[in-house]
Amino acid sequence: MTRAYNFSAGPAALPEPVLRQVRDEMLEWQGERASVMEVSHRGKAFVECAARAESDLRELMAIPDDYHVLFLQGGATTLSALLALNLAGPDQAVDVVLTGHWGEKALDNIAASVKANVAASGKGDGYTGIPDPSGWQLTPGAAFVHYTPNETIHGVEFHDIPDVGDVPLVADISSNVLSRPMDVSRFGVLYGGAQKNLGPSGLAIAIIRKDLLGRHGRALPPIFELQNQARNDSMFNTPPTFGWYVLGLVLQWLKAQGGAAAMGEVNRRKAENLYAAIDGSGGFYRNNVQAPARSWMNVPFFLPDETREQAFLAEAKAAGLVGLKGHRALGGMRASIYNAMPEAGVQALVDFMGDFARRHG
Amino acid sequence: MTRAYNFSAGPAALPEPVLRQVRDEMLEWQGERASVMEVSHRGKAFVECAARAESDLRELMAIPDDYHVLFLQGGATTLSALLALNLAGPDQAVDVVLTGHWGEKALDNIAASVKANVAASGKGDGYTGIPDPSGWQLTPGAAFVHYTPNETIHGVEFHDIPDVGDVPLVADISSNVLSRPMDVSRFGVLYGGAQKNLGPSGLAIAIIRKDLLGRHGRALPPIFELQNQARNDSMFNTPPTFGWYVLGLVLQWLKAQGGAAAMGEVNRRKAENLYAAIDGSGGFYRNNVQAPARSWMNVPFFLPDETREQAFLAEAKAAGLVGLKGHRALGGMRASIYNAMPEAGVQALVDFMGDFARRHG
Repeated sequence: MTRAYNFSAGPAALPEPVLRQVRDEMLEWQGERASVMEVSHRGKAFVECAARAESDLRELMAIPDDYHVLFLQGGATTLSALLALNLAGPDQAVDVVLTGHWGEKALDNIAASVKANVAASGKGDGYTGIPDPSGWQLTPGAAFVHYTPNETIHGVEFHDIPDVGDVPLVADISSNVLSRPMDVSRFGVLYGGAQKNLGPSGLAIAIIRKDLLGRHGRALPPIFELQNQARNDSMFNTPPTFGWYVLGLVLQWLKAQGGAAAMGEVNRRKAENLYAAIDGSGGFYRNNVQAPARSWMNVPFFLPDETREQAFLAEAKAAGLVGLKGHRALGGMRASIYNAMPEAGVQALVDFMGDFARRHG
Repeated sequence: MTRAYNFSAGPAALPEPVLRQVRDEMLEWQGERASVMEVSHRGKAFVECAARAESDLRELMAIPDDYHVLFLQGGATTLSALLALNLAGPDQAVDVVLTGHWGEKALDNIAASVKANVAASGKGDGYTGIPDPSGWQLTPGAAFVHYTPNETIHGVEFHDIPDVGDVPLVADISSNVLSRPMDVSRFGVLYGGAQKNLGPSGLAIAIIRKDLLGRHGRALPPIFELQNQARNDSMFNTPPTFGWYVLGLVLQWLKAQGGAAAMGEVNRRKAENLYAAIDGSGGFYRNNVQAPARSWMNVPFFLPDETREQAFLAEAKAAGLVGLKGHRALGGMRASIYNAMPEAGVQALVDFMGDFARRHG
């Protein structure tokens, strides 16, 4: 048995050197004579591990000092609900821009606590592009504008940061964090689950401009108050220590690869290679997303019919290419090609797709 | 280097055979050609792993069919906040019984969303015992009564389930779940973080009588609605898959040990051995908890002065006994002796304590 090229959308592939290190120190971590899972989050060894992950994330993303960096339990959906409670009062407006499934889900979780307004939606076009920003119906004085820079199911990605004036921009970057450089200072909040580009599921990160916290005026349970996590280095309660540790190893791996700029070049080439294979297949493979909005991270595509889709999945698996089944909301295929997917993996998929099309076309 | 006996309160020791299995299948899990962290939570392999964990937990705890078993992101503190929102309307009363730090923390998180009432508190006695149930000021018609059967910091444990009539009893069992048999049918909800007796941090379990969900009448974000998790086999969102998998391995290990009844016998012997060492030390070691409320899981104890406490920690570590520093809220020492701590580990601690007292007494 050998490891496959894993195109899962999340939980997703991790860099193999990271997994090897996790394996090698599973029983004894850093002279602690215990697994990293077994030591106190307040002990010196784990506190240093946690601080290094924060410092590496700040360096890799060039996060300004006036932003908190939080490591939290849960995922992006939980955070979308918490951010609405923490950044807006119950009577305040929050604008959302929808370009796919996860934006809709964030809206559901935001709308329970604020006056939510859909400023723009790509739903009418089946989420195949980004609504023209000139037509966005933004609310003056909104508490924040929420959007999803990369939609993992629909494969729609913003390649530029939208201009929403002085209103804080809040972005779910679960699926494209550190996939290329991103100007953090343009955002009020960047947040996401770790399980796509950073680590295992059950851990979320939030990068929050410091002035945005503590202004909501609500009576919240202390555990929902993000200010409490900010004041306690994300250890207001017991954090998901194992996930935090793995994320730290992924960040060290990213630094060794050259950081966000280097990953951006690799990710651009991977995406170009795969879209070229789809577009050059004479219509055998189809991706319906408008070219300027095509995601570098998640590439959904369809075959001529379901029979051939079944054959594609089975033969791909036999060829060592797994996790290619599309999300049930969209069907078809989907190749998620996050940072941990090497160029050789995308090339193997491209080669397989060409061969499959010749045999089944 | 060899593994130490780890008395950490949580994150805490895991059974070594579990860690060995996690290590051995870190790169390739169950023929998936990927780590368990890298596969979809909706794929066949993980769904089976998750279902087996639920089925094993139901078997080990003899959970009746009219209870949901949920595996959730977060820990006990998050769940205490969510349970208040899910089990009670904003004008309903909730009674809490305080026997230590974690009960206080649950109260803080419950009180933001309901009319909370402290029905009884051991605080006046420094949390050294359980307030006499005949004096509890319970509110007729309360939505639920919350208590903490085992307080990990103060080392106070209920050895019987209190009778609160028809009001649902809600218990945070983070630190004593499966440490002995427990009659689930006496409870409305049993919940806890995994990181003490079940697995790594970042995962919580909730065992909820089915009729208690969906009655609160609040507008909640869908991700806070536990009914949504119950309807989706705890996969309403991406669960903490790695933690769930490790917890499943711990449950298999517990079954191999003979289950809750067998663990109860072992845990009773471990606790008796350690308390006998403390009580037999001629006052060199002190545990202040009243005998009927002494915890089988967490044994706080004090030395004559701080200088000797520092020496104790240093010499214990050199002898392969780690994680013995008490919680900052209480000071002193604390030995957490959960299921994964073997009797030999407690005996090693007892032997060390006797030797240390002779040399430093």
